[in-house]
Amino acid sequence: MTKGKLLYEGKAKKIFETDNPEVLLVSYKDDATAFNGVKKGTIEGKGLINNKVSNYMMRLLEKSQVPTHYIEEISDRETLVKKVSIIPLEVIIRNVSAGSFAKNYGVEEGIVFDKPTIEFSYKNDKLGDPLINSYHAIALKLATKEEIETIKKYAFKINEEMKKFFISINVKLIDFKLEFGKLKDGKVVLADEISPDTCRFWDATTNEKLDKDRFRRDLGNVEGAYKEMMKRIIG
Amino acid sequence: MTKGKLLYEGKAKKIFETDNPEVLLVSYKDDATAFNGVKKGTIEGKGLINNKVSNYMMRLLEKSQVPTHYIEEISDRETLVKKVSIIPLEVIIRNVSAGSFAKNYGVEEGIVFDKPTIEFSYKNDKLGDPLINSYHAIALKLATKEEIETIKKYAFKINEEMKKFFISINVKLIDFKLEFGKLKDGKVVLADEISPDTCRFWDATTNEKLDKDRFRRDLGNVEGAYKEMMKRIIG
Repeated sequence: MTKGKLLYEGKAKKIFETDNPEVLLVSYKDDATAFNGVKKGTIEGKGLINNKVSNYMMRLLEKSQVPTHYIEEISDRETLVKKVSIIPLEVIIRNVSAGSFAKNYGVEEGIVFDKPTIEFSYKNDKLGDPLINSYHAIALKLATKEEIETIKKYAFKINEEMKKFFISINVKLIDFKLEFGKLKDGKVVLADEISPDTCRFWDATTNEKLDKDRFRRDLGNVEGAYKEMMKRIIG
Repeated sequence: MTKGKLLYEGKAKKIFETDNPEVLLVSYKDDATAFNGVKKGTIEGKGLINNKVSNYMMRLLEKSQVPTHYIEEISDRETLVKKVSIIPLEVIIRNVSAGSFAKNYGVEEGIVFDKPTIEFSYKNDKLGDPLINSYHAIALKLATKEEIETIKKYAFKINEEMKKFFISINVKLIDFKLEFGKLKDGKVVLADEISPDTCRFWDATTNEKLDKDRFRRDLGNVEGAYKEMMKRIIG
């Protein structure tokens, strides 16, 4: 597999073409941003950690009958994935109140919901990734009703599998962001990444934050938290 | 029926107790506000028009098996209604893109949706009435799942009845806001008002705006638009 043209450089990843038109190469960076790019920094070692953590989670989910874009890890920071067209919706599952949810609705962090919630943001940097509901996503033709139903089904299934896994390593899964894409044949698969950049992880004993909130909120020991998560997940 | 203590004064209405603890008296004002109270003004005759228009719509909806809080119009600006505890959700139905929807999602006004959409805002002035989805409304215990289902069913039914009625008077129903409340026995009924304050009405021939957008956007002839709507509705 040859690394080809750089197709896209995002906040945390570069995407390259390969010699197979249906396969892309993802290269994870140490760059970190928050608040829609307003805060910028570097988290040393993050690229390697997110690559390995995300691949671990994708393999775990594939075993639980959730289709993903994952093909193969080819180096510490590089992974081959299936080419998808990304559905322009960020999918957020919440088990416990935190972050923008707590702020927007005027409640404290740490409220455990009776049932997990799901929400969508319209992936659009210019508009600030606004909250959108499924009626509006369909009206704006960002996804079909059937695709939204598939995404909801997978997202709740992913939450159940991830909660089980994380509590086994003494971590509470507070909330997380997913992105889905469509393969050439229209099949919906999990794409993007699952990592301390895209999830809120709290130590189940101490409630210590083990995720990107340490960077967002200047809590210190950012690298330590990412390393601790990799150690617990991969050993 | 005696007018009792002032219970509440809102942006456009005053609510009084009556000698029946299950009955309230609503008195409509000419005051107008927009943008969460930032813009203030007066629309002469609005109180009378909104009282009569809203009561007409409530009676029309009652005939179509939608339960409402309406009891009886007792003067040009005053109406008796059933006492409810308001469910703190603004319910917005959209048939055509306009207003905050067009702004938030970066699309033009006037796009006709394949199907009507529904959305909820959390009625909370301090938080700026943020958009909320049904999962979050339930998680925050603003309403139960069953109440949300009932509200959705009534809201879409109200839209069908209202679209039919308004097109018969050459008006396009673009979008509108509803509020629901619970009677003492828990029954969900339509509350608040239906008027040019709470709906977007466009003349079906010219697309001229016949609603509060004339006030919000300084389009002039605000009183004329309200009077025109009353004339078409009530004759």
